[in-house]
Amino acid sequence: MHALIVHSHPEPRSFNAALTATARQTLADNGARVTVSDLYAEGFDPLESPRHYGPRADPNYFSALTEQRYAGTSHSRPADVQREIDRLEAADLVILQFPLWWHAQPAILKGWFDRVFIYGELYTGRKRYDEGHFRGKRALLSVTTGGPAETFSPYGRGGPIERLLWPIHYSLHYMGFDVLPPFVAHAVQGGGISYAQRDVFERHLEERKNAWAERLTALDEAKPIPFTGWRDWDDDGVLRADHPLRWGP
Amino acid sequence: MHALIVHSHPEPRSFNAALTATARQTLADNGARVTVSDLYAEGFDPLESPRHYGPRADPNYFSALTEQRYAGTSHSRPADVQREIDRLEAADLVILQFPLWWHAQPAILKGWFDRVFIYGELYTGRKRYDEGHFRGKRALLSVTTGGPAETFSPYGRGGPIERLLWPIHYSLHYMGFDVLPPFVAHAVQGGGISYAQRDVFERHLEERKNAWAERLTALDEAKPIPFTGWRDWDDDGVLRADHPLRWGP
Repeated sequence: MHALIVHSHPEPRSFNAALTATARQTLADNGARVTVSDLYAEGFDPLESPRHYGPRADPNYFSALTEQRYAGTSHSRPADVQREIDRLEAADLVILQFPLWWHAQPAILKGWFDRVFIYGELYTGRKRYDEGHFRGKRALLSVTTGGPAETFSPYGRGGPIERLLWPIHYSLHYMGFDVLPPFVAHAVQGGGISYAQRDVFERHLEERKNAWAERLTALDEAKPIPFTGWRDWDDDGVLRADHPLRWGP
Repeated sequence: MHALIVHSHPEPRSFNAALTATARQTLADNGARVTVSDLYAEGFDPLESPRHYGPRADPNYFSALTEQRYAGTSHSRPADVQREIDRLEAADLVILQFPLWWHAQPAILKGWFDRVFIYGELYTGRKRYDEGHFRGKRALLSVTTGGPAETFSPYGRGGPIERLLWPIHYSLHYMGFDVLPPFVAHAVQGGGISYAQRDVFERHLEERKNAWAERLTALDEAKPIPFTGWRDWDDDGVLRADHPLRWGP
Protein backbone atom coordinates (compact mmCIF):
# COMPACT_ATOMS: atom_id res chain seq x y z
CA MET A 1 0.00 0.00 0.00
CA HIS A 2 1.23 3.46 -0.89
CA ALA A 3 -0.38 6.50 0.69
CA LEU A 4 -0.10 10.13 -0.36
CA ILE A 5 -0.89 12.80 2.23
CA VAL A 6 -1.52 16.26 0.79
CA HIS A 7 -0.88 18.59 3.69
CA SER A 8 -2.12 22.20 3.64
CA HIS A 9 -1.17 24.24 6.68
CA PRO A 10 1.45 27.01 7.00
CA GLU A 11 2.47 26.27 10.63
CA PRO A 12 4.80 23.27 11.16
CA ARG A 13 3.66 22.84 14.78
CA SER A 14 -0.06 23.08 14.04
CA PHE A 15 -2.77 20.61 14.98
CA ASN A 16 -2.95 19.77 11.26
CA ALA A 17 0.80 19.06 11.16
CA ALA A 18 0.42 16.73 14.14
CA LEU A 19 -2.40 14.85 12.43
CA THR A 20 -0.27 14.48 9.29
CA ALA A 21 2.60 13.14 11.42
CA THR A 22 0.18 10.71 13.06
CA ALA A 23 -1.05 9.48 9.69
CA ARG A 24 2.48 9.09 8.38
CA GLN A 25 3.54 7.07 11.40
CA THR A 26 0.40 4.96 11.67
CA LEU A 27 0.34 4.04 7.99
CA ALA A 28 4.06 3.23 8.03
CA ASP A 29 3.57 1.08 11.15
CA ASN A 30 0.86 -0.75 9.23
CA GLY A 31 3.26 -1.50 6.41
CA ALA A 32 2.47 1.26 3.93
CA ARG A 33 4.87 3.48 2.02
CA VAL A 34 3.94 7.11 2.70
CA THR A 35 4.61 10.26 0.68
CA VAL A 36 3.69 13.75 1.93
CA SER A 37 2.99 16.70 -0.36
CA ASP A 38 3.53 19.58 2.05
CA LEU A 39 2.05 22.31 -0.14
CA TYR A 40 3.16 25.32 1.91
CA ALA A 41 6.64 23.96 2.64
CA GLU A 42 7.18 23.01 -1.01
CA GLY A 43 5.96 26.42 -2.18
CA PHE A 44 3.16 25.05 -4.32
CA ASP A 45 1.68 27.80 -6.52
CA PRO A 46 -2.13 27.58 -6.40
CA LEU A 47 -2.82 29.96 -9.28
CA GLU A 48 -3.83 28.44 -12.61
CA SER A 49 -2.48 31.09 -14.94
CA PRO A 50 -0.71 31.65 -18.27
CA ARG A 51 2.62 32.03 -16.46
CA HIS A 52 2.89 28.26 -16.05
CA TYR A 53 2.78 27.52 -19.76
CA GLY A 54 5.66 27.84 -22.22
CA PRO A 55 4.51 26.77 -25.67
CA ARG A 56 0.83 27.61 -25.98
CA ALA A 57 -2.04 26.04 -27.89
CA ASP A 58 -3.37 29.57 -28.22
CA PRO A 59 -0.99 32.36 -27.22
CA ASN A 60 -3.74 34.95 -27.68
CA TYR A 61 -6.46 33.51 -25.48
CA PHE A 62 -5.82 31.68 -22.23
CA SER A 63 -8.16 28.77 -21.60
CA ALA A 64 -7.01 26.63 -18.70
CA LEU A 65 -8.44 23.39 -20.11
CA THR A 66 -7.01 23.94 -23.59
CA GLU A 67 -3.53 24.68 -22.25
CA GLN A 68 -3.63 21.83 -19.73
CA ARG A 69 -4.35 19.38 -22.53
CA TYR A 70 -1.79 20.95 -24.86
CA ALA A 71 0.94 20.92 -22.21
CA GLY A 72 0.47 17.17 -22.01
CA THR A 73 0.79 16.52 -25.73
CA SER A 74 3.65 19.02 -26.11
CA HIS A 75 5.55 17.58 -23.11
CA SER A 76 5.71 20.99 -21.44
CA ARG A 77 3.66 20.34 -18.35
CA PRO A 78 4.64 22.50 -15.33
CA ALA A 79 7.15 20.58 -13.18
CA ASP A 80 5.23 20.99 -9.91
CA VAL A 81 2.04 19.69 -11.53
CA GLN A 82 3.88 16.70 -13.01
CA ARG A 83 5.36 15.94 -9.59
CA GLU A 84 1.91 15.90 -7.98
CA ILE A 85 0.49 13.73 -10.77
CA ASP A 86 3.37 11.26 -10.36
CA ARG A 87 2.64 11.10 -6.64
CA LEU A 88 -1.06 10.50 -7.30
CA GLU A 89 -0.32 7.77 -9.85
CA ALA A 90 1.89 5.98 -7.33
CA ALA A 91 -0.68 6.16 -4.51
CA ASP A 92 -3.43 3.70 -3.57
CA LEU A 93 -4.78 6.01 -0.88
CA VAL A 94 -4.88 9.84 -0.94
CA ILE A 95 -5.45 11.80 2.26
CA LEU A 96 -6.13 15.52 2.16
CA GLN A 97 -5.24 17.11 5.52
CA PHE A 98 -6.46 20.68 5.93
CA PRO A 99 -8.18 23.20 8.20
CA LEU A 100 -11.67 24.32 7.16
CA TRP A 101 -11.25 27.97 6.19
CA TRP A 102 -14.34 29.83 5.03
CA HIS A 103 -16.40 26.65 4.75
CA ALA A 104 -13.94 25.01 2.35
CA GLN A 105 -10.31 24.03 1.82
CA PRO A 106 -7.56 26.73 2.04
CA ALA A 107 -6.69 28.44 -1.25
CA ILE A 108 -3.43 26.49 -1.59
CA LEU A 109 -5.38 23.21 -1.68
CA LYS A 110 -8.12 24.64 -3.91
CA GLY A 111 -5.35 25.57 -6.35
CA TRP A 112 -3.99 22.04 -6.14
CA PHE A 113 -7.31 20.87 -7.56
CA ASP A 114 -7.34 23.67 -10.16
CA ARG A 115 -3.84 22.90 -11.46
CA VAL A 116 -3.16 19.20 -10.85
CA PHE A 117 -6.40 17.57 -12.05
CA ILE A 118 -5.65 18.36 -15.68
CA TYR A 119 -8.00 18.14 -18.60
CA GLY A 120 -6.94 15.72 -21.32
CA GLU A 121 -4.84 13.12 -19.57
CA LEU A 122 -6.60 12.90 -16.20
CA TYR A 123 -10.18 13.54 -17.33
CA THR A 124 -12.24 14.06 -20.45
CA GLY A 125 -15.96 14.34 -21.16
CA ARG A 126 -16.33 10.60 -20.81
CA LYS A 127 -13.47 9.73 -18.42
CA ARG A 128 -15.14 11.10 -15.29
CA TYR A 129 -17.08 9.98 -12.23
CA ASP A 130 -17.22 6.19 -11.92
CA GLU A 131 -15.14 5.94 -15.10
CA GLY A 132 -12.63 8.46 -13.77
CA HIS A 133 -8.89 8.15 -14.09
CA PHE A 134 -8.23 7.26 -10.45
CA ARG A 135 -10.89 4.56 -10.05
CA GLY A 136 -9.74 1.81 -7.75
CA LYS A 137 -7.92 4.29 -5.52
CA ARG A 138 -9.34 5.61 -2.25
CA ALA A 139 -9.42 9.22 -1.03
CA LEU A 140 -10.18 10.60 2.41
CA LEU A 141 -10.41 14.08 3.92
CA SER A 142 -8.97 14.84 7.37
CA VAL A 143 -10.32 18.22 8.40
CA THR A 144 -10.02 20.50 11.41
CA THR A 145 -12.77 23.03 12.20
CA GLY A 146 -12.76 26.01 14.52
CA GLY A 147 -16.23 25.54 15.99
CA PRO A 148 -17.66 22.91 18.35
CA ALA A 149 -18.97 19.68 16.80
CA GLU A 150 -22.63 20.58 17.51
CA THR A 151 -22.43 23.61 15.23
CA PHE A 152 -21.52 21.33 12.30
CA SER A 153 -24.33 18.83 13.00
CA PRO A 154 -27.31 18.60 10.61
CA TYR A 155 -29.08 21.56 12.28
CA GLY A 156 -25.94 23.37 13.40
CA ARG A 157 -25.26 26.98 12.54
CA GLY A 158 -21.86 26.17 11.01
CA GLY A 159 -23.65 24.42 8.19
CA PRO A 160 -23.72 20.59 8.23
CA ILE A 161 -20.18 19.36 7.66
CA GLU A 162 -21.42 16.94 4.95
CA ARG A 163 -22.79 19.89 2.98
CA LEU A 164 -19.62 21.96 3.37
CA LEU A 165 -17.40 19.11 2.19
CA TRP A 166 -19.68 18.15 -0.71
CA PRO A 167 -17.85 20.14 -3.44
CA ILE A 168 -14.52 18.56 -2.44
CA HIS A 169 -15.96 15.07 -2.14
CA TYR A 170 -17.68 15.47 -5.47
CA SER A 171 -14.47 16.60 -7.15
CA LEU A 172 -12.74 13.46 -5.87
CA HIS A 173 -15.66 11.34 -7.13
CA TYR A 174 -15.38 13.18 -10.48
CA MET A 175 -11.77 11.98 -10.71
CA GLY A 176 -12.84 8.40 -10.04
CA PHE A 177 -11.76 7.99 -6.42
CA ASP A 178 -13.69 5.93 -3.91
CA VAL A 179 -14.27 8.62 -1.27
CA LEU A 180 -14.21 7.40 2.33
CA PRO A 181 -16.14 9.25 5.05
CA PRO A 182 -14.06 12.15 6.39
CA PHE A 183 -12.21 12.35 9.69
CA VAL A 184 -13.09 15.63 11.42
CA ALA A 185 -11.42 17.21 14.45
CA HIS A 186 -13.67 19.98 15.73
CA ALA A 187 -12.98 23.01 17.92
CA VAL A 188 -9.35 23.26 16.83
CA GLN A 189 -7.84 26.73 17.01
CA GLY A 190 -4.22 27.72 17.09
CA GLY A 191 -2.39 30.51 18.79
CA GLY A 192 -4.24 30.61 22.06
CA ILE A 193 -7.62 31.88 20.87
CA SER A 194 -9.56 29.06 22.43
CA TYR A 195 -6.91 27.31 24.50
CA ALA A 196 -6.41 29.12 27.78
CA GLN A 197 -3.64 26.71 28.58
CA ARG A 198 -1.21 24.74 26.51
CA ASP A 199 -2.17 21.51 28.27
CA VAL A 200 -5.78 21.82 27.11
CA PHE A 201 -4.51 22.01 23.53
CA GLU A 202 -2.25 19.01 24.14
CA ARG A 203 -5.04 16.90 25.66
CA HIS A 204 -7.38 17.69 22.79
CA LEU A 205 -4.62 16.87 20.31
CA GLU A 206 -3.73 13.57 21.99
CA GLU A 207 -7.36 12.49 21.93
CA ARG A 208 -7.78 13.33 18.22
CA LYS A 209 -4.44 11.76 17.26
CA ASN A 210 -5.55 8.50 18.87
CA ALA A 211 -8.92 8.61 17.12
CA TRP A 212 -7.20 9.32 13.79
CA ALA A 213 -4.74 6.46 14.24
CA GLU A 214 -7.61 4.08 15.06
CA ARG A 215 -9.51 5.24 12.03
CA LEU A 216 -6.52 4.72 9.74
CA THR A 217 -5.88 1.28 11.13
CA ALA A 218 -9.47 0.22 10.41
CA LEU A 219 -9.55 1.82 6.96
CA ASP A 220 -10.49 -1.37 5.15
CA GLU A 221 -13.74 -1.51 7.11
CA ALA A 222 -14.85 1.91 5.86
CA LYS A 223 -17.49 1.92 3.12
CA PRO A 224 -17.10 4.63 0.47
CA ILE A 225 -19.65 7.44 0.29
CA PRO A 226 -22.27 6.44 -2.31
CA PHE A 227 -22.51 8.57 -5.46
CA THR A 228 -24.52 8.13 -8.61
CA GLY A 229 -22.71 7.28 -11.86
CA TRP A 230 -23.10 6.95 -15.61
CA ARG A 231 -25.61 4.10 -15.38
CA ASP A 232 -27.89 6.27 -13.24
CA TRP A 233 -28.10 9.24 -15.63
CA ASP A 234 -30.02 9.84 -18.83
CA ASP A 235 -28.50 11.38 -21.96
CA ASP A 236 -28.87 14.89 -20.50
CA GLY A 237 -26.81 13.97 -17.44
CA VAL A 238 -29.86 13.89 -15.16
CA LEU A 239 -30.93 11.06 -12.84
CA ARG A 240 -33.21 8.78 -14.86
CA ALA A 241 -36.94 9.48 -14.41
CA ASP A 242 -37.54 5.96 -13.08
CA HIS A 243 -34.52 5.95 -10.76
CA PRO A 244 -35.24 4.73 -7.20
CA LEU A 245 -33.40 7.75 -5.74
CA ARG A 246 -35.89 10.21 -7.26
CA TRP A 247 -38.54 11.44 -4.87
CA GLY A 248 -39.29 14.89 -6.27
CA PRO A 249 -39.72 16.63 -9.62
CA MET B 1 -25.24 53.16 -4.90
CA HIS B 2 -21.68 51.90 -4.98
CA ALA B 3 -20.96 48.45 -6.41
CA LEU B 4 -17.80 46.38 -6.05
CA ILE B 5 -17.16 43.64 -8.61
CA VAL B 6 -14.54 41.08 -7.56
CA HIS B 7 -13.40 39.56 -10.82
CA SER B 8 -11.49 36.26 -10.90
CA HIS B 9 -10.41 35.13 -14.36
CA PRO B 10 -6.93 35.15 -15.91
CA GLU B 11 -8.04 35.86 -19.54
CA PRO B 12 -9.01 39.48 -20.35
CA ARG B 13 -11.19 38.40 -23.28
CA SER B 14 -13.00 35.63 -21.44
CA PHE B 15 -16.74 35.16 -21.06
CA ASN B 16 -16.25 36.15 -17.41
CA ALA B 17 -14.49 39.37 -18.42
CA ALA B 18 -17.40 40.21 -20.74
CA LEU B 19 -19.89 39.65 -17.94
CA THR B 20 -17.86 41.93 -15.64
CA ALA B 21 -17.81 44.60 -18.38
CA THR B 22 -21.58 44.21 -18.77
CA ALA B 23 -22.12 44.63 -15.04
CA ARG B 24 -19.85 47.65 -14.88
CA GLN B 25 -21.67 49.35 -17.77
CA THR B 26 -25.20 48.41 -16.68
CA LEU B 27 -24.70 49.51 -13.09
CA ALA B 28 -23.08 52.78 -14.21
CA ASP B 29 -25.96 53.40 -16.64
CA ASN B 30 -28.30 52.91 -13.70
CA GLY B 31 -26.48 55.60 -11.73
CA ALA B 32 -24.11 53.53 -9.58
CA ARG B 33 -20.43 54.08 -8.91
CA VAL B 34 -18.56 50.89 -9.78
CA THR B 35 -15.20 49.56 -8.57
CA VAL B 36 -13.62 46.39 -9.95
CA SER B 37 -11.14 44.24 -8.02
CA ASP B 38 -9.49 42.37 -10.88
CA LEU B 39 -7.67 39.80 -8.76
CA TYR B 40 -5.46 38.29 -11.49
CA ALA B 41 -4.61 41.64 -13.09
CA GLU B 42 -3.79 43.19 -9.71
CA GLY B 43 -1.65 40.21 -8.73
CA PHE B 44 -3.64 39.39 -5.61
CA ASP B 45 -1.82 36.81 -3.48
CA PRO B 46 -4.31 34.15 -2.32
CA LEU B 47 -2.04 32.49 0.25
CA GLU B 48 -2.68 33.25 3.90
CA SER B 49 0.82 32.82 5.25
CA PRO B 50 3.38 34.23 7.70
CA ARG B 51 5.07 36.14 4.87
CA HIS B 52 2.34 38.80 4.96
CA TYR B 53 2.94 39.76 8.57
CA GLY B 54 5.70 42.02 9.87
CA PRO B 55 5.36 42.42 13.64
CA ARG B 56 3.84 39.20 15.00
CA ALA B 57 1.60 38.46 17.95
CA ASP B 58 3.49 35.16 18.16
CA PRO B 59 6.66 34.90 16.05
CA ASN B 60 7.05 31.23 16.99
CA TYR B 61 3.64 29.88 16.02
CA PHE B 62 1.62 31.08 13.04
CA SER B 63 -2.11 31.20 13.66
CA ALA B 64 -3.93 33.05 10.88
CA LEU B 65 -6.69 34.39 13.15
CA THR B 66 -4.31 35.58 15.86
CA GLU B 67 -2.11 37.41 13.36
CA GLN B 68 -5.06 38.88 11.46
CA ARG B 69 -6.38 40.40 14.68
CA TYR B 70 -2.94 41.57 15.79
CA ALA B 71 -2.17 43.18 12.42
CA GLY B 72 -5.28 45.32 12.95
CA THR B 73 -4.34 46.53 16.41
CA SER B 74 -0.67 47.02 15.49
CA HIS B 75 -1.55 48.92 12.28
CA SER B 76 0.48 46.52 10.16
CA ARG B 77 -2.24 44.99 8.03
CA PRO B 78 -1.04 43.82 4.58
CA ALA B 79 -1.63 46.61 2.03
CA ASP B 80 -3.56 44.45 -0.45
CA VAL B 81 -5.88 43.21 2.29
CA GLN B 82 -6.49 46.75 3.52
CA ARG B 83 -7.26 47.87 -0.05
CA GLU B 84 -9.89 45.12 -0.43
CA ILE B 85 -11.41 45.95 2.96
CA ASP B 86 -11.63 49.64 2.00
CA ARG B 87 -13.40 48.67 -1.21
CA LEU B 88 -15.84 46.45 0.70
CA GLU B 89 -16.55 49.18 3.25
CA ALA B 90 -17.37 51.62 0.45
CA ALA B 91 -19.68 49.21 -1.39
CA ASP B 92 -23.43 48.69 -0.99
CA LEU B 93 -23.43 45.76 -3.42
CA VAL B 94 -20.68 43.17 -3.90
CA ILE B 95 -20.64 40.97 -7.00
CA LEU B 96 -18.28 37.99 -7.24
CA GLN B 97 -17.69 37.09 -10.91
CA PHE B 98 -15.94 33.75 -11.42
CA PRO B 99 -15.88 30.47 -13.35
CA LEU B 100 -16.83 27.34 -11.41
CA TRP B 101 -13.59 25.35 -11.18
CA TRP B 102 -13.72 22.03 -9.35
CA HIS B 103 -17.18 22.68 -7.95
CA ALA B 104 -16.12 25.94 -6.28
CA GLN B 105 -14.49 29.33 -6.82
CA PRO B 106 -10.94 29.50 -8.31
CA ALA B 107 -8.09 29.49 -5.78
CA ILE B 108 -7.44 33.21 -6.24
CA LEU B 109 -10.97 33.98 -5.03
CA LYS B 110 -10.85 31.37 -2.28
CA GLY B 111 -7.72 33.12 -1.03
CA TRP B 112 -9.55 36.45 -1.15
CA PHE B 113 -11.95 35.00 1.43
CA ASP B 114 -9.06 33.51 3.45
CA ARG B 115 -7.10 36.77 3.66
CA VAL B 116 -9.60 39.64 3.41
CA PHE B 117 -12.34 38.55 5.83
CA ILE B 118 -10.13 39.12 8.87
CA TYR B 119 -10.75 37.97 12.39
CA GLY B 120 -11.00 40.77 14.92
CA GLU B 121 -12.20 43.77 13.00
CA LEU B 122 -14.51 42.11 10.47
CA TYR B 123 -15.82 39.25 12.58
CA THR B 124 -15.66 37.85 16.10
CA GLY B 125 -17.46 35.07 17.93
CA ARG B 126 -20.55 37.25 18.28
CA LYS B 127 -20.23 39.55 15.23
CA ARG B 128 -21.26 36.97 12.67
CA TYR B 129 -24.23 35.83 10.60
CA ASP B 130 -27.18 38.23 10.91
CA GLU B 131 -25.08 40.37 13.23
CA GLY B 132 -22.17 40.32 10.80
CA HIS B 133 -20.03 43.32 9.95
CA PHE B 134 -21.48 43.85 6.46
CA ARG B 135 -25.18 43.63 7.36
CA GLY B 136 -27.25 45.97 5.23
CA LYS B 137 -25.06 45.30 2.18
CA ARG B 138 -26.02 42.92 -0.60
CA ALA B 139 -23.83 40.27 -2.27
CA LEU B 140 -24.40 38.30 -5.43
CA LEU B 141 -22.48 35.57 -7.27
CA SER B 142 -22.21 35.61 -11.07
CA VAL B 143 -20.87 32.22 -12.11
CA THR B 144 -20.01 30.47 -15.34
CA THR B 145 -20.07 26.67 -15.58
CA GLY B 146 -18.63 24.33 -18.20
CA GLY B 147 -21.55 21.90 -18.36
CA PRO B 148 -25.08 22.24 -19.70
CA ALA B 149 -27.75 23.67 -17.36
CA GLU B 150 -29.51 20.29 -16.95
CA THR B 151 -26.43 18.75 -15.34
CA PHE B 152 -26.60 21.38 -12.55
CA SER B 153 -30.33 20.90 -11.93
CA PRO B 154 -31.52 19.22 -8.68
CA TYR B 155 -30.98 15.72 -10.13
CA GLY B 156 -28.13 16.65 -12.45
CA ARG B 157 -24.80 14.83 -12.38
CA GLY B 158 -22.87 18.11 -11.97
CA GLY B 159 -24.28 18.37 -8.46
CA PRO B 160 -27.13 20.86 -7.92
CA ILE B 161 -25.72 24.35 -8.36
CA GLU B 162 -27.34 25.48 -5.08
CA ARG B 163 -25.39 22.81 -3.23
CA LEU B 164 -22.09 23.67 -4.93
CA LEU B 165 -22.45 27.37 -4.13
CA TRP B 166 -23.58 26.78 -0.52
CA PRO B 167 -20.14 27.19 1.13
CA ILE B 168 -19.62 30.53 -0.65
CA HIS B 169 -23.14 31.77 0.05
CA TYR B 170 -22.79 30.72 3.67
CA SER B 171 -19.48 32.56 4.01
CA LEU B 172 -21.15 35.74 2.73
CA HIS B 173 -24.03 35.20 5.16
CA TYR B 174 -21.44 34.69 7.93
CA MET B 175 -20.08 38.16 7.14
CA GLY B 176 -23.56 39.66 7.41
CA PHE B 177 -24.38 40.17 3.73
CA ASP B 178 -27.87 39.78 2.30
CA VAL B 179 -27.10 37.17 -0.36
CA LEU B 180 -29.14 37.50 -3.56
CA PRO B 181 -29.82 34.45 -5.75
CA PRO B 182 -26.89 33.83 -8.10
CA PHE B 183 -26.71 34.56 -11.82
CA VAL B 184 -25.41 31.49 -13.64
CA ALA B 185 -24.24 31.19 -17.26
CA HIS B 186 -23.99 27.51 -18.13
CA ALA B 187 -22.07 25.66 -20.84
CA VAL B 188 -19.35 28.31 -21.04
CA GLN B 189 -15.96 27.07 -22.22
CA GLY B 190 -13.09 29.04 -23.61
CA GLY B 191 -10.51 28.28 -26.20
CA GLY B 192 -12.64 26.40 -28.67
CA ILE B 193 -13.32 23.24 -26.66
CA SER B 194 -17.06 23.49 -27.04
CA TYR B 195 -17.43 26.24 -29.61
CA ALA B 196 -16.85 24.92 -33.10
CA GLN B 197 -17.21 28.44 -34.39
CA ARG B 198 -16.53 31.84 -32.96
CA ASP B 199 -20.05 33.03 -33.82
CA VAL B 200 -21.60 30.35 -31.59
CA PHE B 201 -19.53 31.70 -28.69
CA GLU B 202 -20.58 35.25 -29.56
CA ARG B 203 -24.29 34.40 -29.75
CA HIS B 204 -24.17 32.60 -26.42
CA LEU B 205 -22.31 35.52 -24.88
CA GLU B 206 -24.75 38.13 -26.26
CA GLU B 207 -27.68 36.21 -24.85
CA ARG B 208 -26.13 35.88 -21.38
CA LYS B 209 -24.95 39.50 -21.35
CA ASN B 210 -28.51 40.63 -21.99
CA ALA B 211 -29.89 38.36 -19.28
CA TRP B 212 -27.26 39.63 -16.82
CA ALA B 213 -28.02 43.28 -17.63
CA GLU B 214 -31.74 42.63 -17.10
CA ARG B 215 -31.05 40.92 -13.83
CA LEU B 216 -28.88 43.79 -12.59
CA THR B 217 -31.47 46.37 -13.59
CA ALA B 218 -34.17 44.55 -11.59
CA LEU B 219 -31.93 43.93 -8.58
CA ASP B 220 -34.23 45.65 -6.10
CA GLU B 221 -36.92 43.08 -6.85
CA ALA B 222 -34.68 40.17 -5.84
CA LYS B 223 -35.38 38.64 -2.43
CA PRO B 224 -32.31 37.51 -0.48
CA ILE B 225 -31.71 33.80 0.11
CA PRO B 226 -33.17 32.93 3.53
CA PHE B 227 -30.73 31.82 6.24
CA THR B 228 -31.24 31.10 9.91
CA GLY B 229 -29.69 33.47 12.47
CA TRP B 230 -28.96 33.97 16.15
CA ARG B 231 -32.63 34.00 17.17
CA ASP B 232 -33.12 30.57 15.60
CA TRP B 233 -30.29 28.80 17.47
CA ASP B 234 -29.95 27.46 20.99
CA ASP B 235 -26.90 28.02 23.18
CA ASP B 236 -25.04 25.18 21.41
CA GLY B 237 -25.47 26.86 18.02
CA VAL B 238 -28.10 24.34 16.91
CA LEU B 239 -31.56 25.10 15.50
CA ARG B 240 -33.94 25.27 18.47
CA ALA B 241 -35.81 22.00 19.15
CA ASP B 242 -39.18 23.72 18.65
CA HIS B 243 -38.12 25.57 15.49
CA PRO B 244 -40.60 25.33 12.58
CA LEU B 245 -37.77 24.44 10.16
CA ARG B 246 -36.98 21.21 12.05
CA TRP B 247 -38.46 18.09 10.54
CA GLY B 248 -35.95 15.45 11.57
CA PRO B 249 -33.80 14.48 14.56
